[in-house]
Amino acid sequence: MTIEYATRYRRASRIPAEPGRPYFIEKGEGDRAHLFGDLITIYAGGEQTENTFNFFTVEGPKGDLIPAHLHPDTHEVFYITAGAVRLFVEDTEGNQQEKLLTPGDFGFVPKNCPHAYRMERHHSQVVGVAAGPGGTFERFFENLGAPAEQLGLPSEPVIPAPGRFASVPERYDVRFLPDHQWRTR
Amino acid sequence: MTIEYATRYRRASRIPAEPGRPYFIEKGEGDRAHLFGDLITIYAGGEQTENTFNFFTVEGPKGDLIPAHLHPDTHEVFYITAGAVRLFVEDTEGNQQEKLLTPGDFGFVPKNCPHAYRMERHHSQVVGVAAGPGGTFERFFENLGAPAEQLGLPSEPVIPAPGRFASVPERYDVRFLPDHQWRTR
Repeated sequence: MTIEYATRYRRASRIPAEPGRPYFIEKGEGDRAHLFGDLITIYAGGEQTENTFNFFTVEGPKGDLIPAHLHPDTHEVFYITAGAVRLFVEDTEGNQQEKLLTPGDFGFVPKNCPHAYRMERHHSQVVGVAAGPGGTFERFFENLGAPAEQLGLPSEPVIPAPGRFASVPERYDVRFLPDHQWRTR
Repeated sequence: MTIEYATRYRRASRIPAEPGRPYFIEKGEGDRAHLFGDLITIYAGGEQTENTFNFFTVEGPKGDLIPAHLHPDTHEVFYITAGAVRLFVEDTEGNQQEKLLTPGDFGFVPKNCPHAYRMERHHSQVVGVAAGPGGTFERFFENLGAPAEQLGLPSEPVIPAPGRFASVPERYDVRFLPDHQWRTR
């Protein structure tokens, strides 16, 4: 039996509209969004956790380094479940590190630390948790990109209109750093 | 280069003692604990996230149903990365569900919902997040069980002394339900 719910985010979601209800979601069937070449799938958001945490996956093709950014009030987990992902991070004193992460490896990016990543194999997948005292921001991806109904990666990259970059990231605690340089290699 | 830190929990941990520092942990090298036949590995705890969330894995052999319990103030994620795990959960109105979860499948257990699980294949692994407005409780496992230095599953099950059940679970927002019955089959 598959139960779908109408929520404020989707006409048909596997995430119950009311908090406090247990639920299961099979692989890939969370709330999906496309941003650039990636598929983001939300399995739990702030509504489920009294705004303490969320849980989502990001899947993508082998590709370019995403733009450097930071979150003023959000701590972020990168846990690799498939492929290989190179994570770049800078601490608040300006020290930079990078590391190639493979399945089972973990990276932690505290708030205010600039970071970026690059999928280095096709079919890479990252499990993410992104939250802080100010809340959770899992709906960033579908607001900068677009909600998706179908399963799988976007068939064409979803490129946000330029005006979206001026308004959307700030609402979701995302600050892009267009002049940032990685000096790790 | 591998950096180890002396923390309040371990003489040598891959988790930095001070919050606010980015870090990487390779597969299996988080703070390890044994409880019964399982290996619990903590990759991030409340200190890293201003007490908003944690991130850990539980690995175990094919085995018995663990005792039913609930968390009065903690929401919990079960995300399967290896093997097969049957999750049992009851909502606050007494409705029970169970589902066999395989890699990529997700289960959400809100606070106050009785739950239990059974590893149904050897080498199963669950990624967990367990947190709520009252904090995070990732050190439960090593306080009821024992911290571990070695990698891998316990060579002998770590059985807590009976007196530990009277004092430890309550401190970590765990309430065992010894008379609970699963009626799902």
